[in-house]
Amino acid sequence: MAFSVSSKGVYAIATTPFLKDGSVDFTSIDRLTDFYEESGCTGITILGIMGEAPKLEPEESRAIVKRVVSRAKVPVIVGVSAPGFAGMRSLARDSMEMGAAGVMIAPPPALRTDDQIVGYFAGAVDAIGDDVPWVLQDYPLTLTVVMSPGVIARIMTNHSSCLMLKHEDWPGLEKISTLRSLQIAGELRPFSILCGNGGMFLDFEPERGADGAMTGYGFPDMLTELIGLFAAGKRDEAHDLFDAHLPLIRYEQQLSVGLAVRKHVLKRRGVITTDTQRKPAQSLSSTAKAEVDYLLSRLARYDKRAAL
Amino acid sequence: MAFSVSSKGVYAIATTPFLKDGSVDFTSIDRLTDFYEESGCTGITILGIMGEAPKLEPEESRAIVKRVVSRAKVPVIVGVSAPGFAGMRSLARDSMEMGAAGVMIAPPPALRTDDQIVGYFAGAVDAIGDDVPWVLQDYPLTLTVVMSPGVIARIMTNHSSCLMLKHEDWPGLEKISTLRSLQIAGELRPFSILCGNGGMFLDFEPERGADGAMTGYGFPDMLTELIGLFAAGKRDEAHDLFDAHLPLIRYEQQLSVGLAVRKHVLKRRGVITTDTQRKPAQSLSSTAKAEVDYLLSRLARYDKRAAL
Amino acid sequence: MAFSVSSKGVYAIATTPFLKDGSVDFTSIDRLTDFYEESGCTGITILGIMGEAPKLEPEESRAIVKRVVSRAKVPVIVGVSAPGFAGMRSLARDSMEMGAAGVMIAPPPALRTDDQIVGYFAGAVDAIGDDVPWVLQDYPLTLTVVMSPGVIARIMTNHSSCLMLKHEDWPGLEKISTLRSLQIAGELRPFSILCGNGGMFLDFEPERGADGAMTGYGFPDMLTELIGLFAAGKRDEAHDLFDAHLPLIRYEQQLSVGLAVRKHVLKRRGVITTDTQRKPAQSLSSTAKAEVDYLLSRLARYDKRAAL
Amino acid sequence: MAFSVSSKGVYAIATTPFLKDGSVDFTSIDRLTDFYEESGCTGITILGIMGEAPKLEPEESRAIVKRVVSRAKVPVIVGVSAPGFAGMRSLARDSMEMGAAGVMIAPPPALRTDDQIVGYFAGAVDAIGDDVPWVLQDYPLTLTVVMSPGVIARIMTNHSSCLMLKHEDWPGLEKISTLRSLQIAGELRPFSILCGNGGMFLDFEPERGADGAMTGYGFPDMLTELIGLFAAGKRDEAHDLFDAHLPLIRYEQQLSVGLAVRKHVLKRRGVITTDTQRKPAQSLSSTAKAEVDYLLSRLARYDKRAAL
Repeated sequence: MAFSVSSKGVYAIATTPFLKDGSVDFTSIDRLTDFYEESGCTGITILGIMGEAPKLEPEESRAIVKRVVSRAKVPVIVGVSAPGFAGMRSLARDSMEMGAAGVMIAPPPALRTDDQIVGYFAGAVDAIGDDVPWVLQDYPLTLTVVMSPGVIARIMTNHSSCLMLKHEDWPGLEKISTLRSLQIAGELRPFSILCGNGGMFLDFEPERGADGAMTGYGFPDMLTELIGLFAAGKRDEAHDLFDAHLPLIRYEQQLSVGLAVRKHVLKRRGVITTDTQRKPAQSLSSTAKAEVDYLLSRLARYDKRAAL
Repeated sequence: MAFSVSSKGVYAIATTPFLKDGSVDFTSIDRLTDFYEESGCTGITILGIMGEAPKLEPEESRAIVKRVVSRAKVPVIVGVSAPGFAGMRSLARDSMEMGAAGVMIAPPPALRTDDQIVGYFAGAVDAIGDDVPWVLQDYPLTLTVVMSPGVIARIMTNHSSCLMLKHEDWPGLEKISTLRSLQIAGELRPFSILCGNGGMFLDFEPERGADGAMTGYGFPDMLTELIGLFAAGKRDEAHDLFDAHLPLIRYEQQLSVGLAVRKHVLKRRGVITTDTQRKPAQSLSSTAKAEVDYLLSRLARYDKRAAL
Repeated sequence: MAFSVSSKGVYAIATTPFLKDGSVDFTSIDRLTDFYEESGCTGITILGIMGEAPKLEPEESRAIVKRVVSRAKVPVIVGVSAPGFAGMRSLARDSMEMGAAGVMIAPPPALRTDDQIVGYFAGAVDAIGDDVPWVLQDYPLTLTVVMSPGVIARIMTNHSSCLMLKHEDWPGLEKISTLRSLQIAGELRPFSILCGNGGMFLDFEPERGADGAMTGYGFPDMLTELIGLFAAGKRDEAHDLFDAHLPLIRYEQQLSVGLAVRKHVLKRRGVITTDTQRKPAQSLSSTAKAEVDYLLSRLARYDKRAAL
Repeated sequence: MAFSVSSKGVYAIATTPFLKDGSVDFTSIDRLTDFYEESGCTGITILGIMGEAPKLEPEESRAIVKRVVSRAKVPVIVGVSAPGFAGMRSLARDSMEMGAAGVMIAPPPALRTDDQIVGYFAGAVDAIGDDVPWVLQDYPLTLTVVMSPGVIARIMTNHSSCLMLKHEDWPGLEKISTLRSLQIAGELRPFSILCGNGGMFLDFEPERGADGAMTGYGFPDMLTELIGLFAAGKRDEAHDLFDAHLPLIRYEQQLSVGLAVRKHVLKRRGVITTDTQRKPAQSLSSTAKAEVDYLLSRLARYDKRAAL
C-alpha cells in the first residue's frame, strides 16, 4: 500500500541499531526491517527522534536510508528534521531519490505562536520542494511546540504534499475528534492520522478517528493485531489485548530511559544484536532490566510473543 | 499513626469539592474525609495542586483546613506552597494551630540550580519555623524543577523538620533506589517516601523502597490494598490488582484533564456531589466521559468497587 | 485624562514599598503616588508583577488599591492576574468599586496555542464582567506566553472592554508596527499601546506607533520628558536623553535583581523609605549597589535629577 | 598569545558569511579573519551559535575551520557542540589536527540538575579526549541550562583541559565575583573568563574579574579598546566609550534578530559581502535597518569607526 492520505495500520518507528563500538549495525537493520514487515506493519519510519537521528552523521543517515529502502517492501518514511533548511532539503531529496515514500518533519522547539508554526512549515516545504510527500509530527511532550487543531488545519490546507499527521499530543484524544469533525463538515481535506506516544492511548485513538499507529513499541506485531481488532469492530478483544500490554507500554513511556527499554526488548526478541545507544544516552540499571523482564514474563501468560 | 519519618501507607491527595456555583462544598468534604479513612488511608493531604489550592481565597483555605482537621482521625497535611514566604508562613502556622500534622511545600517553577533549590527551602523553613513538620514535594513534570538525589539529601540534612518526600519524578524509580542506598550506607538520615504521579509506577515503587503512595486516584481503597499486598510480600497479586486498574490510572494521568477524570470517578462513586472545578479548568467531553465509564465497567469485572 | 483607547504618556508601574519588617509601607505609597503624578505620569498601575503582587494577601491588595485610588488624581490600573477566575473577579470588582480606572490581566504561563490564549481571555472577561475596562499584558520574557499580532487582534476584536495593550515583547518593535498597520488598514479597532520592558527600547517605540510607556524605571520624570520630546518631534534630543539613561535602564533590566535596583534608586531619590522586598527575593550586593551609584553619578553629569 | 588559563582580551565570535545563494563565502571569511586580527582580537571563535553552526554540513564546518586556522595568527577556538558525542569528537579532533587552539562546548538544553550538567561534560571530555583544550560555554538565556558557580567549579576541578569560561549568564556579575573569590581563596584553580551576552555588561565585567570579552558585536575594535582602557585603569574613559556604543549593543541584543543586526553592521563596515543568513532565519525590516543606521550615525559623532 502506497503512502497516501488513506494510509492505515502501523508505521513502525525504527530504532537505529548500533554495534558495541557505536557504529551502525546494518545486519540488525536488515533483521529489523524484515521484522517490522513480518509483524504486519504497513510502513516504516526511520531516522526519527527515537531513531537517534541527531547523533548520526549525514553519510550514515544516507547509508541507513539506502539500506532500509532497498530491502523494505512497504513505504519508508525518513525523518529529515534539521536546524537548517539546507540540510533538511538535502536529506529529503537524497532520500526520495533512493526510493523513500516520503519524509517526516517536526517543528523546532523555539516555535510558539500559530503563525510561527505555520510559517516554519511553509519554509520547510519551500526548501524540500512541494513534490515531496511528508508527515507532520505533532509531539509537544518532547518538542514543547503545541499545535492546535486550527494550526494543523492551516498547515494541511497550505500544503497538499502533507499526507499524514503523526499525532502524539498528550492529552490528545479530543484533538483527533476535532480534526475528524472538521473533515466530516467538509472544512478540511482528508489526511491520514497515525498515533505515537508509544501507544499509551491506542485503546481509544482508533475510535476517535485515528487510522492507526506510528510508534516503535517493541511489539509491533501486537500493534497491528490491535488495529486489526478495532477494524473488525472487536472492541472488547482489542482492549483485552491492549490492557495486557499496557504495563510494558507504560514502562517504556518514560522519557530518557524509554529508548533503553525498547532496545532491551528488541534485543531480547532477537531482532537487534545489541541494545547499544550512541552517547550521551541513559541506560537501564540491572534492577530496571529485571523489572522489564518481569513485565515480559507476566505478559507472556497472555501473549505468547512475550515468552522470550 | 502519627506523621513521622516512618509514615507508611497511603496519604490521599484530597480534591476540593465545589458546588455547581463554585463555592466550597463542605458536605462533600466531610464525605470525602470519611471515604479516605474508610479506604484505609493513613493520612490526608489537602490544598495540593490537584486540590485547586491556588484558586482558593485565604479564608476558604483556612475553612477547609479546619473542617478536615476537626473531622479526620488520621494525620492531615496542608499544602502551603505560595509565591511569598509571608503567605506560606501564615497558612502553615494557622494550619498547625488548627491541628494539622504538617505542611507540604513545592518549589516554585523558576528554580534551576541545586543551590537555588536548597536555598529556597532554607528560606521556606526559616519562614514557617523549624518546628513545623513538612513534606518536600518533588514534582518536575508540572513544576519543571528537577531535584537530584543529592539535592534532596542536602535539604533533608539541612532540615530535620522535613519528615517525608512526596516523590513524583518521572522517570523516578532509580531516584528512590539511590536515596534508599544513601540511607543504608548511613550517609543520609531516615525519612518517609510516598509516591505520586497518580500511581503510574506504584507496581514497582514499593520494591524500590517507597513507603507507600500520596496520590488522589479515585480508588484509594485499591491503593491501600496494593500497598498491603506488597507489605505482605504478595508481589504477583499486587501486580494483578495494579494491572487491572492501570488503564484507568493511565487515563487519569493526562495533564490538564486528569482532575476532571478524577472528580468524575469520585462523583460516580457517590463521594462528592458535583464534579465542578473552579475556572479556568478543562472539562471532559461526553466522549471522554463514556471512555472513562467504559474503563470502569471493564475494571468492574475484576474489582467490584468499580461496579457503579 | 481618563483611561481610554486614546491614553497616552506614561503609566508608572508602581513598586509596593515595604517597611523593614515586611509590612506594607503606606506612607511611602502616598509619597510614591505623589511622585508619579509630579513626574508627569498620566496613570499609575499598581499590583503588577514588579509590584510583588503575588506575595500580597487579598486584604493587603485591597488596602493598597484603596490608598492609591483615593489619593491619585490620574487613572489607576490594578493588576488582577490570578490563578483562578473567582479571585480575579473579586479583586477586579472590588477595585472598580473603590474607584480604579481599570484592571490589567497577564496570561498564565501554561498557555501555548493562539486558541488557548484567546480562550483564556474570554474566560477572564466573562469572570470580571465586560463592563470592566482592562489592559492586556503581553510579556513573554517572564510569562513565556507569546502572542502574535493576530492573537492580540482577535482578543481586541472579541472584547471592546480591552482599552490598552501593555507591550513588552522582546524583540517587539515589529509587533507595534504590524498592529498599527492593521489599524490603519481599518482591520482592527483603536486601542492604546504603552510599552514596558523597563524602557529598553523606548528610543524607537514611539515612532513605531506606541502611545507611551508603562514601566517602573526609577526616573518616571525622564520617561515623561522623553515621550514629550517625541511628541514634539524632537527626535535627536529624545535620543540624547534616552542614551544618557540607557546604562542605568540596562542595569535595571536584569531579571531577578531588577526590582532591587529599582527600589534602591527610588530609595536614594527619597521616594520610598526602605528598599525592602518581600521574600523570597534577591538583593543587591554592596558591589552592585556601588555600580548603580556610579551609574547614577555618571548620569548626573547629564541629568541633574540623578544628582542624589 | 596562546590559548591558556591566562588568556585575555577579546575573542571574536565569528559570524559565518554566506553568499546570496546560501553557500559559504570564503572570501568574506578571509576578510573577517583579517578584520578581527586588525581589530586587536587575541583570539577567534568560529562555529558558535551565532555562527549558525547547526545549519552547516560537517564538510562545510571542516572547510571553514581549515580556512580560518590556516590564515589566522591568533588562536582559533572551534564550537563543537553536537547532539551526539561521536560527532563532537570527530569535529574536535579534526579541528585540532588542522591547527585549532581548542574547542568550545555548550550544554544541551535538556540538562537541569548540577549532577546532570557535571556528568554531561565528563562524557564530553571523555569523548573528545582530555588532551583537547576547551572552553565551557555558560549561556542560560538561550540554552536554558543554568550553571551555579559551584557547578562551574566542579567542572573546572574535574577537567584540567578546560581553560576558559565563556560567561554569558544574565544577570551574571555576581557569578564572576563568586568564581574569582573562590580562586583567591585557593579553592579553585585558575582559568580565563571571557564574557559574552553581546557585551551588554562589559562596562562592569572586567572590574568583577573578567579577562575580557568573547562576543561578536560588530565593533570588535571598540571591544579591544575598551578592555585596554580597563587594563590601563581608565575607568571613566572606558565607560564613556561603552556608553557611546550601548544603544547599538542593546539593539543587537534582541534574540532572533540580533544576528541580522550584526551581519548588517559587518556588511556596512565592508567586512562581509552579504548579510545573508541560512534559513530559517529572521531578517531586518527596512524600518529596523533604518533604526540601526540611525544608531550608527549617532555613534559616529563619538566614534569615527561608525562613520560608514
